[in-house]
Amino acid sequence: MQDALLALTRYWTDRGCMIVQPFNTEVGAGTLNPATILRVLGPEPWRVSYVEPSVRPDDSRYGENPNRLQTHTQFQVILKPDPGDPQEQYLASLEALGIDIHAHDIRFVEDNWANPATGSWGLGWEVWLDGLEITQFTYFQQAGGMSLDPVSVEITYGVERIIMALQNVSNFKDIAYAPGISYGEVFGQSEYEMSRYYLDDADVETQRRLFEEYAAEARRMLDARLPVPAYVHVLKCSHTFNVLDARGAISTTERARAFARMRGLSREVSQLWAARREELGHPLGLAGVPAAAPAPASFAEVSTPAPLLFEIGTEELPPHEVTKTARAVREALVGKLGGTRLAHGTVEVHATPRRVVALVADVAPREPDAERFVRGPRVSAAFDADGNPTKAAQGFARGQGVDVATLEKVDVDGNEHVGVTKTDVGRGALEVLSGVLGELVAELRADKNMRWDDPKLSFSRPVRWLVALLGTEVVPVAVSALSAGRTTRVHRTAPSPVVDVASADGYLNFLAGHGITASIADRRATIVATAQKLAESVGGSIDVDGEAALLDEITNLVEEPNAILGGFASSYLELPQEILTTVMRKHQRYLPVRSAAGELLPHFVAVANGSCDADAVREGNEAVLRARYEDASFFWRADLKVAPAAMKAELSRLAFEERLGSMTDRANRIAAVAADLGTVLSDADQATMSRAAGLAKFDLGSQMVIELTSLAGTMAREYAIRAGEPEAVAQALFDMERPRSAGDAPPATLPGAVLALADRFDMLVGLFAVGAAPTGSSDPFGLRRAAAGVISILRAHPALRSITLRRGLSAAADHVRAQGIEVPASTVDDVAEFMTRRFEQQLLDAGHDHRHVAAVVALPPATADETLAEIEHRVGDADFGALVAALQRVRRIVPAGTAAGYDPMRLTEPAETGLHQVLVKVAESLGAGALSLADFVATAGELTAPINTFFDDILVMADDEDVRAARLGLLATIRDLAAPVLDWQALGTSFTTE
Amino acid sequence: MQDALLALTRYWTDRGCMIVQPFNTEVGAGTLNPATILRVLGPEPWRVSYVEPSVRPDDSRYGENPNRLQTHTQFQVILKPDPGDPQEQYLASLEALGIDIHAHDIRFVEDNWANPATGSWGLGWEVWLDGLEITQFTYFQQAGGMSLDPVSVEITYGVERIIMALQNVSNFKDIAYAPGISYGEVFGQSEYEMSRYYLDDADVETQRRLFEEYAAEARRMLDARLPVPAYVHVLKCSHTFNVLDARGAISTTERARAFARMRGLSREVSQLWAARREELGHPLGLAGVPAAAPAPASFAEVSTPAPLLFEIGTEELPPHEVTKTARAVREALVGKLGGTRLAHGTVEVHATPRRVVALVADVAPREPDAERFVRGPRVSAAFDADGNPTKAAQGFARGQGVDVATLEKVDVDGNEHVGVTKTDVGRGALEVLSGVLGELVAELRADKNMRWDDPKLSFSRPVRWLVALLGTEVVPVAVSALSAGRTTRVHRTAPSPVVDVASADGYLNFLAGHGITASIADRRATIVATAQKLAESVGGSIDVDGEAALLDEITNLVEEPNAILGGFASSYLELPQEILTTVMRKHQRYLPVRSAAGELLPHFVAVANGSCDADAVREGNEAVLRARYEDASFFWRADLKVAPAAMKAELSRLAFEERLGSMTDRANRIAAVAADLGTVLSDADQATMSRAAGLAKFDLGSQMVIELTSLAGTMAREYAIRAGEPEAVAQALFDMERPRSAGDAPPATLPGAVLALADRFDMLVGLFAVGAAPTGSSDPFGLRRAAAGVISILRAHPALRSITLRRGLSAAADHVRAQGIEVPASTVDDVAEFMTRRFEQQLLDAGHDHRHVAAVVALPPATADETLAEIEHRVGDADFGALVAALQRVRRIVPAGTAAGYDPMRLTEPAETGLHQVLVKVAESLGAGALSLADFVATAGELTAPINTFFDDILVMADDEDVRAARLGLLATIRDLAAPVLDWQALGTSFTTE
Repeated sequence: MQDALLALTRYWTDRGCMIVQPFNTEVGAGTLNPATILRVLGPEPWRVSYVEPSVRPDDSRYGENPNRLQTHTQFQVILKPDPGDPQEQYLASLEALGIDIHAHDIRFVEDNWANPATGSWGLGWEVWLDGLEITQFTYFQQAGGMSLDPVSVEITYGVERIIMALQNVSNFKDIAYAPGISYGEVFGQSEYEMSRYYLDDADVETQRRLFEEYAAEARRMLDARLPVPAYVHVLKCSHTFNVLDARGAISTTERARAFARMRGLSREVSQLWAARREELGHPLGLAGVPAAAPAPASFAEVSTPAPLLFEIGTEELPPHEVTKTARAVREALVGKLGGTRLAHGTVEVHATPRRVVALVADVAPREPDAERFVRGPRVSAAFDADGNPTKAAQGFARGQGVDVATLEKVDVDGNEHVGVTKTDVGRGALEVLSGVLGELVAELRADKNMRWDDPKLSFSRPVRWLVALLGTEVVPVAVSALSAGRTTRVHRTAPSPVVDVASADGYLNFLAGHGITASIADRRATIVATAQKLAESVGGSIDVDGEAALLDEITNLVEEPNAILGGFASSYLELPQEILTTVMRKHQRYLPVRSAAGELLPHFVAVANGSCDADAVREGNEAVLRARYEDASFFWRADLKVAPAAMKAELSRLAFEERLGSMTDRANRIAAVAADLGTVLSDADQATMSRAAGLAKFDLGSQMVIELTSLAGTMAREYAIRAGEPEAVAQALFDMERPRSAGDAPPATLPGAVLALADRFDMLVGLFAVGAAPTGSSDPFGLRRAAAGVISILRAHPALRSITLRRGLSAAADHVRAQGIEVPASTVDDVAEFMTRRFEQQLLDAGHDHRHVAAVVALPPATADETLAEIEHRVGDADFGALVAALQRVRRIVPAGTAAGYDPMRLTEPAETGLHQVLVKVAESLGAGALSLADFVATAGELTAPINTFFDDILVMADDEDVRAARLGLLATIRDLAAPVLDWQALGTSFTTE
Repeated sequence: MQDALLALTRYWTDRGCMIVQPFNTEVGAGTLNPATILRVLGPEPWRVSYVEPSVRPDDSRYGENPNRLQTHTQFQVILKPDPGDPQEQYLASLEALGIDIHAHDIRFVEDNWANPATGSWGLGWEVWLDGLEITQFTYFQQAGGMSLDPVSVEITYGVERIIMALQNVSNFKDIAYAPGISYGEVFGQSEYEMSRYYLDDADVETQRRLFEEYAAEARRMLDARLPVPAYVHVLKCSHTFNVLDARGAISTTERARAFARMRGLSREVSQLWAARREELGHPLGLAGVPAAAPAPASFAEVSTPAPLLFEIGTEELPPHEVTKTARAVREALVGKLGGTRLAHGTVEVHATPRRVVALVADVAPREPDAERFVRGPRVSAAFDADGNPTKAAQGFARGQGVDVATLEKVDVDGNEHVGVTKTDVGRGALEVLSGVLGELVAELRADKNMRWDDPKLSFSRPVRWLVALLGTEVVPVAVSALSAGRTTRVHRTAPSPVVDVASADGYLNFLAGHGITASIADRRATIVATAQKLAESVGGSIDVDGEAALLDEITNLVEEPNAILGGFASSYLELPQEILTTVMRKHQRYLPVRSAAGELLPHFVAVANGSCDADAVREGNEAVLRARYEDASFFWRADLKVAPAAMKAELSRLAFEERLGSMTDRANRIAAVAADLGTVLSDADQATMSRAAGLAKFDLGSQMVIELTSLAGTMAREYAIRAGEPEAVAQALFDMERPRSAGDAPPATLPGAVLALADRFDMLVGLFAVGAAPTGSSDPFGLRRAAAGVISILRAHPALRSITLRRGLSAAADHVRAQGIEVPASTVDDVAEFMTRRFEQQLLDAGHDHRHVAAVVALPPATADETLAEIEHRVGDADFGALVAALQRVRRIVPAGTAAGYDPMRLTEPAETGLHQVLVKVAESLGAGALSLADFVATAGELTAPINTFFDDILVMADDEDVRAARLGLLATIRDLAAPVLDWQALGTSFTTE
C-alpha cells in the first residue's frame, strides 16, 4: 500500500502538485485540511496533493468489519484552477497505480458533495471501478459559504479500497501494507482501541466541554483576525462533535445547533482568510482564465440544404439530467430556429451522459429575404394643408434613409400612417446557426448548476467540446472559451479517444461505430434485452416494470451498455430479500434477477460502460457485492443475537430530540397514543397492536438499520418473526413505518395503521410544541412527509375514519404534555391546519377542482375522498345542482349564530308548513351519524323543491318576531342537517349558474 | 524540498522501512508519534520512516526569524533492532539526498536525548554537516520509564536545515519548496498566525482547562486498558502544556508538577502498551539477536616476544569519555596482565572518538610455569602413633591425585602440615591475552552507558569491532557477539574504509598513514599548532590557555584534525564579544581568533575531521555562524529598541513560581532585600546599588537572554550602558548574576555583590518556604548552586562580613512574608543549616582538616577563611596548642547554661585571683567587636598559664556555693571571651596530644 501512496505522490508531483503533510489535528476528510478548504478560496492558483488519514468516529467497528475503519486513508489532490482535463489526468493516475483502465469498467457516477459544517459544496462524481467506489471527484463550488472563483477540482482517492481491489483481498487487515507487514499488523490495535474510545469510552461530558472550549477559542481567534488558528479550532470542534455523535449523545436539535454554530464559524474563517489573502496582495498571484474563443469573423456560404449536427460534449451528466437536457435542448433549438427565417426539417435530440446530440434535417442554405413596413407619422401629421411633407415626415424619412417622396401610406388600426417598406436580407445558414447554437449553449441550465474553468458557462457538469457541422461544413460557434469544430470524443479508453467527424450525415451511425448509442430509448431497449437474456441464461428474469426507475437511471449512466451477469453466494439468500435488493439497487445499480415465482436468484446484472475485460469486471462487481453482503450478514447475525426487547432497550441511548427525550420516550408516547386511538379496532387487532406497540421502533437499535436506515420497519418485521412474534405483530411493526415517502404504500393492516398514525401524530405535535415546525425549505425532521403520511393512511383506511386529525392530535398532545412539555391549544390548531393544507395540496395536485377540494378538505380524509368522488360524479347533475343552490341559499339567508330548532306552531303558511313536513321526514330517514354524500342526496334531494317554494312564497323576515324566529330556525335546521356532509358554500358556483 | 522528502522516503523504504503518516494531533517531535514511542517498546521488530511536522510553540517567531519555526519538518526513522551499521546506513542516506559526504565535514557530536514528559531517554549524537546540526541520532534506551530490549536506533533529520544548506539559502522562507513555489509562500501565513496564537492570543485559562480535561481522559483510558487513546490524550496534554509555556503562563513549580503528571501517565501508557502487546502474543514476532561469537577452540603458540595491539572500535565517543576511557583501559589492562604471569613491556593506550588503541611491548610468548604448595592436614593428624598415614592424609593425597608417600611437610604459621607442591603450567600468550582482552571489553563502562544490538555489552557508545594482534598473529578474542580480528576501520569516507592490519608493529604509523592520529596529546598539539598558524595568517592568535577546555573537547571530536579558518562579517563585531564567543564555543566549538590586544577578530578556526573540500566546509561553517550571528543581531537590534525599564515591565509576564509570583515580584523582593543589607555600603555604592536594583533582572525580558540564557547579566550590562546608565550601575547588574557556576568569578563590585546576595537569599528563603527545597538529586531551581554562590560572594568580599547568613536570610524572609507567604522561623534555620553544609563541603573539598573546618564553619565566611588560614598557620605552634587545650578545658568544666560574670570578691586563692587579674587585662585589651584569631591569640595567649595554674591549684567545685559560683563564672567569662573567635571544642585534639 505504501508503494501506491508513493506512486500517486510521484504522479501528481510530476503534474505540478506540491506535497503537503496530513493535518496535525483530527480531520474527517482530506478536504478539511487547510491545504484544501482554505486554499480553494480566492483567486490564487494552488496545486497540491497529500495523504490524509481521515478519522470518522462513527465508522468505528472495533476493526471487526472487513471494510469499515474509524481511520481510513485518503489521497487528496487539488487542482486550482480546473486544468480543463481533470478526468483524463485522473484516469492516467489510475494507470500509474497499476490499474488497467482498458480492462476495467470505470465510471463517473453522480455524487454531489456538501459539508454543512463548513458551508461547502461541490458537484461531481464518485468514481467506480467495477462497481467499487474508489474516488470522490468534485468541482468545488463553494467553501465556507463563499463562491469559488476559480473553481477547484478535488480528487479524493479512497486508498484502502483501491488497494483491496488491486491486491484482491476482502478484509482491510489483509492488505499488504509494506513488504512483510500487513495493514492489520500495523493499524489493527489502534483500530480496535480508537473504536472503543469513540463508541464506548470517550467521556461524554468531557467532550461537551471540549466542544465549548474549542468553539470559544475559534471565536476569539476570529476576533483577533487570525483565520488559521481559528480554523484549527473549528476542526477540533468538528472532531469533538463527531465523537459525541459516535457516542450516541447528539440529539437532532443539538445536531442542528452544533452544525449551525460550526457553519457560522467556518464561514467567518473563510471570509477572513480570503480578506487576509487580499490584504497580503495575493502572494501566489492570480490564477489564469482561459481566453474567450475568437468570435467568427465571417461565414462561408452553403449552397444546398444540409443536415445539421450539433453536439454538446460534457463530462458525465447525472442520469436524470440526461433526459431532461435532451428535452430542453430540443425545445430551445426548435424555439430559437423558429425565431429565425431559416427553413429546416425535423429536429431530433439524443443524449448520453457525455453528449447531447441535436440533429436537424434539411437546413436551408439561407434565410429568405423578408419585407417589413416601418410606420411613420399619421398621414394627417405628415402633410400640411398644402399636401407638403411636414417636418415630422421629413425627419422620419431622413431617419429611415429614404427620400420623403417615397413614403408610402398604409392603414394601421384604422389610422392612415406614412411609412417605408424595408427588405431584411436573409442571412446564410452558418451565420444563423452560429448565433442560435451559441446562445443555446450559453443558456444551458440544469436543476443544479456548476462552474468550471470556463469564464462564463454554467451547467450541470462541464461542457468540454462542441461539434457543429452543417453537412460537411463546420458551423463557426464561439461561446465563452469554447469553439465548435468537427472533433468529438468517444470512449476515453478507445484506441483513439478523440476523432474527427466528416459530416453531419449519419452521425448516429458514426457514434454507433464507436460503440456509442446516442438514443436513450435505444440504450434502454438494449439494456432490457441483454439483461433479460443474461437473466434467462440462469433461469430467471428481470422485473422490467418493477425496476423501471432503476433501468432509467442505468440507461443514463452509460454510453455503450454492456450488461454483465454476476452472481453471489446463494447463502446470502437467507437474508431478507429487501436487504439484498436495497443493496443492489441503491448502492450498486444492479438489476436483481428473479425466478418465475418472483424469488430472488443469486445473480444480478450490472451494466458496464463500453468494452472491457468481462471477467475482470464481473469479478470486481461480485467482490463489491460480496463485501456489502458480508457487511449485511454481519449485521444480520449480530442483530439476531439480540432479542427485540433487548434491542429496544438500546433506544434509550439514541437521542430523538433534546426536550422530547430519547427514542425510548418517543416509542412510549407512540404506544400510548396508539392505545388511545386503537379503541376503534377489534379486540384481536387491539391485542396485536398493543404487542407491537411494546416493541415499536425496536429495530432502530439494530446494526442493520443503523447502516441501512431505509430498512427500518422491514427489519423490525424480520427480526420480530425470527424472535417468535406472531406474524400479525411483525406486520404491524413493518406497517407502522409506512408510507416512507410520497409514493410508498400505506400500512396494509389496521393495527399497523393505528401505530403509524400514532407515530406521526406524536412527531408532529411534539416537534411543533418545541418550536421545530418546518420553515421555508428547512424541514429537518421531515414533518411535511409525516403530515402527508397521516393523510395517506386515513385515506387508505376508511375504517379509521373516526380518528379525525383533531382526535389524533389531541391524544398526542396529552402524552407530550405528560412528559412535562407545554403544548398550547394553538399548537394543535397549527398542526391541524398544517395537515389540512398538505391534504389540500395532495388533492389539488391530483387535479381536482379547487372548489370541490375546498368543500371536502375539512372532512376526515376517507370521507373526503368519497365525498369528492361523489361530487365529481354529480357534475352535470341538475338535481344536485339545484340542491346545492337551495342549501347555499339557506345558508346565505340565515345569520351566523342562529341556532337550529323552531316552534312548528308558529309556521302557518303552506310553503312553510310544507317545508317543515318534508324536513321532518327527511331528518327522520337520515337519522343520526355520519352520512355519505350519496345517501344525503338520495334523501335530502326532496328538500330542494320545498326550499325553493319557501323562498318564493315566504318573507323570512316577518314583522312578527316569533314567526321570524320560527322561519329562521327552520332554515337553520336544514343548514345544520346538511353541514356535516360537506362545505356547501365552498362549492361556489361549480354546480349553479347564479 | 518535497523532492528531498521523497528521496529519503525512497531510500529508507528500500531498506525495509515502512512509511506511516504524521500523527493527527500536534506533536513536538517525530519521536512522540506512537509509531516511535510505543513501537520501540517490547521485543517486536519495527522499521519505519515518516515525515513529522513538529510543533514547538516556544519556537514561534512570527515567521520573522530566518531559522526558527513553530512548526518544522522532521524526517524520522526507527530501526528496531539496531541493524549494527546504522551510522553507515545514515551516511548513505545523505548521499541519497545529494550530499557529497566526501567533500563535507560530517561529524557525530555527543548529544544525549531525554524527554522527561514521557520518561524516555537515549544516547547518541547530533550530526553536523560543516558545523550545522542536521540530524539527531539516538540509541533509544528507555521509553515511558521502561528499558528497551532490543534497543532502537532513532534517526531524526531536521529537514528545513538540510535543505537550506543544500539550496544555499539563509532564510527558511527562501527554500524552494516545490517547483515554482517557496516555503514561505506555502507556510508563511500559517507560521505568522500560529506564532500569534502561541505567543499572544491563546487563552490561558482555556488551555489550563484543556490540560485538565485531557489528563483526566488519559487517566480514564488507562483505567479502561486502552493505551492508544490514553496516549493520544497524553500528547494533547503535552501540546497544551507547550502552549501555556509559550504564553509564559507556567511557573517552575507548575512545570515540575505538570511534567510529573505527564511522565506518570506516559509510563502507565508504555507499561500498558507493552502488556497489551504481550497479551496479543507479540503479533509482529520477536526481533532477532546477533549470535554469540564462537569461543576460541584452541590457541596457536607463539615463539618469540612480540608487541600486542588491541583496538576497541567504537562509534563516536563523547569527548570527555575519550580521555577517561584511555585511562581506564590502561588501568584495566595493566591490572589484568598483572594478574597473570605473562611478561610484558610498556603499556600505552591512545584514544580517538572512534577507537581505543592499547599497545603492549614485548609480550612474552608464554607464562612461565609456577609452583604452588597445597596444604593438607596437620602432621599431627596426618600420621598415627605408628607414623602411618591416617585416613585424613590418605584422603588428602587421593584428592590431590598423588601417592600418600609423596606428601611433603611444611611449616605453615608455626604449624607443621603435610602437603603437595604442584606446578601450574604457564599458558601461551594468546590464551592469556584472549581471556584478559575479552574481560576488558566485557567490563568496559563509562559515566553513562547504553546498549545496542549486542546481547551483552554496555558502554558509552556501541563497540563495533575489535583488533587484537600479537605481532602478526590474531589473538582470538570472543566477547558476546564480537570476535577480534585484524580488520580495522579508518575514515568512513576513505576510499577503503575497512582495512586489514598486518602486524601490531608500527600500528600508530599505520593509522597515521590513514590520516588518524591516535594520540590525544599529538592531536591536541596538532590542533593548537595549525589553529595558531591559521590565526596568525590573519594577524591574530588563539588564546590557548583561555580555550583549554574547548581545545580538549575539540581534540576528542576528531581523529584527523583539519583546522579550517573561517571568517564572519566584521559588522558582527559590533555585538558584545561575549555573545560572539558564547555562540562560537558553546554551539559550534569554534576557536575565537583575537588580536594582540585581545580584541576579537572576524575569524574563527573550526576543526574538521579528516580531509574534505576545505572551501565547501569553510563556507558551510561560515553560513552556520552567520545564521547564528544573524539571529543574535536580530535579538540585539530588537532588544536595543526597548528601554531597560520597559524590558523590565515585561517580567510581569514571566512566572517565577506559582506562589512566589512573577519575575517582577521577585525583582522587587531582591531590591528590597538589597536595600536592607546595603546599609554597609558607602553612600555612593548605595546609590549605585539602588539604581541597579530598580532594573534588577530586566534582561530576562530581552530576546537575547531568552535565547542564550547564559548571557543573563552580560546583556543587562550591555543594554544598560547603551541605555545611558552609569558604568557602575551596568557593572552591578552584571555582577549580580555572578557566580554563575562553581568555578565562576564572584561579583567584582560591592553593589553587585549585595545584589547578588539579595538575589540568592530571596531565592533560598522563598523556595524553602513554599516547600521547594532540593531533595536527593532533584534541585530544579539550583538552590545548591545559589547557596554556594552566597558563600563564594561572602568569602570574596570581607567588607560584607557583617552580612551574616542569618541576617541575609532574615531580611529575605521579611520580604517574602510581606507577600503574604508564611515563612516559619524553622525555615530560616533550615536554610542557614543548608548553606553552612555547603560551606563545609567547599572547605573539605579544598582539603582542609575536618576539625579545623568544623571550628570555623559557623563564622561569617570571610572570617572563617581568615581564621582557618590562621589555624593552619599555627599548626605545630606549641603555645597555640596550649591555649587551645586551656580553652577547651575551660569549656569542658563549665556546665552548659552557666552564665558569664562573677563576684571577684569571692575569689581568694592566688591561682584564682591571678587568673582574674590577667583576664581583666586581656578582656580590656581585646575590647568589643569581632576579632581575628591572630589578634585574639596575641592577647589571650597570656591566659594559658594562669588557666593551667588555676586548674592545678583550685577545686572549682568548692563546697561554698558562692565560691563555686564565682569560680564557674570566672571560667564562663573566659569561655565567652573566646567563643566568637572559633569553635575551640571542634578543633579536638588537632593541637594537643591529650
